[in-house]
Amino acid sequence: MDLVHLDDVRAAAADLAGRIVRTPLLPCPWDDELLLKPESLQPVGSFKLRGATHAIARLDPDRRALGVVTHSSGNHGQALAYAARQAGVPCTVVIPAGAPEIKIDQVRAYGAEVLIVPPAERLPAAERIVAERGRTLIPPFDDRRIIAGQGTVGLEIAEDLPDVEVVLVPVGGGGLASGVATAVKALRPGTAVYGVEPEYAADARESLTTGELVAWGVDRTYRTSADGLRTNLSALTFAHLRERLDGIVTVTEEQIVAAMARLVRRTRLVVEPSGAVATAARIFRAPDLPTGRTVAVVTGGNVDPAVLATAATDG
Amino acid sequence: MDLVHLDDVRAAAADLAGRIVRTPLLPCPWDDELLLKPESLQPVGSFKLRGATHAIARLDPDRRALGVVTHSSGNHGQALAYAARQAGVPCTVVIPAGAPEIKIDQVRAYGAEVLIVPPAERLPAAERIVAERGRTLIPPFDDRRIIAGQGTVGLEIAEDLPDVEVVLVPVGGGGLASGVATAVKALRPGTAVYGVEPEYAADARESLTTGELVAWGVDRTYRTSADGLRTNLSALTFAHLRERLDGIVTVTEEQIVAAMARLVRRTRLVVEPSGAVATAARIFRAPDLPTGRTVAVVTGGNVDPAVLATAATDG
Repeated sequence: MDLVHLDDVRAAAADLAGRIVRTPLLPCPWDDELLLKPESLQPVGSFKLRGATHAIARLDPDRRALGVVTHSSGNHGQALAYAARQAGVPCTVVIPAGAPEIKIDQVRAYGAEVLIVPPAERLPAAERIVAERGRTLIPPFDDRRIIAGQGTVGLEIAEDLPDVEVVLVPVGGGGLASGVATAVKALRPGTAVYGVEPEYAADARESLTTGELVAWGVDRTYRTSADGLRTNLSALTFAHLRERLDGIVTVTEEQIVAAMARLVRRTRLVVEPSGAVATAARIFRAPDLPTGRTVAVVTGGNVDPAVLATAATDG
Repeated sequence: MDLVHLDDVRAAAADLAGRIVRTPLLPCPWDDELLLKPESLQPVGSFKLRGATHAIARLDPDRRALGVVTHSSGNHGQALAYAARQAGVPCTVVIPAGAPEIKIDQVRAYGAEVLIVPPAERLPAAERIVAERGRTLIPPFDDRRIIAGQGTVGLEIAEDLPDVEVVLVPVGGGGLASGVATAVKALRPGTAVYGVEPEYAADARESLTTGELVAWGVDRTYRTSADGLRTNLSALTFAHLRERLDGIVTVTEEQIVAAMARLVRRTRLVVEPSGAVATAARIFRAPDLPTGRTVAVVTGGNVDPAVLATAATDG
């Protein structure tokens, strides 16, 4: 399988310059060897803006004029709508009936067309828009351009902290972890790159342990509050992680909630549960991780207001 | 009076390199011409780390060995304790009896010595420590080194956004506003630098309007939630602002609360009331400000958990 390489990530970084926030590394007040990479500070509130912006930048002019489409109503959908507006490219986001009004309003506020369909018809609806209107489908993670774009997170870590020893990155569909591992292992082969999953969505750990790509159903993954990490790997991201990840650890729901509260109160970042898992691993799973100067990627900050209020005041 | 000049701010920037976070400019989701400078992301949660770090860096080795002292238990006290630990310099923070336990614990956690005295004895106690133990008093704003250190915020704004047209900066004691105006007006004379105060602590506006340095008592200023801005100007900061500020506007308590909520929910920053006033001015006082590409300094994020929970869920 044709994997993404460092040159692809470098090309993505050139595309993204001036279009995304180059997030700083923040010292962690309770751990002198930990730094945080706060991707929650991107416009739209997650690292997904990197891949979406890069995927659009790589379209040739004819394709750009016809526009893009996605069937993710989560952080990727928001990111694609925002990136498309920035690039002056038409965008359609297919959203399942029953999705929160606030997400629909937000996508519309970014100027994207919204198409609401029954949940089971999301993918067919998006494919119909591709066939009938010539829009290009931009998937959330199963795409080399997306992986290269997310990999710029790793490039920046290696540039800003040349002696980084450990990088901790959340794993959902695996696009971010694939890109970060690609960049970091190419530039700093001695740095350990670890994935982190909720124990209720540990499909990637099982896949890497058994050597077979497995999928966990929503009957298991719905139990984690880290909704951004319920997705399974694809063959493409599995191939990247198998070759380039040094290991994978899981965290419990209690650990995710505790890490989120600590990030809100002590680093002044608004984070969502998925965004807290890498930090949770450093706090609670240290015996299973290498020691040394560590960067934890804080992937996103799109949290329910009530959950944020609880994180601010409890514990 | 000997004012701080651009060269002093540049020297401070050289001292601070690698010791503070170089905060990015964040696009604002509801205003295409507004960028935010999130100083809430500094360790200790406010811009005060810049001045404190610079003041300590400028001490000669003999003075450093004898240590530093301050009688501010707020953001400056936290910042001085943190900066002193980073530099390996002994530090005493004089705290008035009755201050919140959490602040005392935090100063101790940074390794500083804490001296608790009756509120009226704060300054005499600090001066006694200077006289008896040779510590150097580092005041929160009435100091050329502090002003130069805070001015690095302006230097970074001018570097990162060369075509900036308006800079909005909160005014308490005036150290930050003095430093920012010094750097920005020297580098970009055409850029307007405006101070922002709560209407309940508008001593700087009155001083600048009348041309006479006035002080507002706590009987008036206690009414603002922006506790970091209740301080009055000193002769030194008044001299800087009179010469270099283009104007000053005020915001109401309701406007501060609304801006804080919007920052928390839409930019994923945890901010304190004082940290929200510049953004509040851009939102609510636009008719009194110049138009164009604007940077609002978000000065700090040390907010009471209950206040944060309200900002997350109300409005």
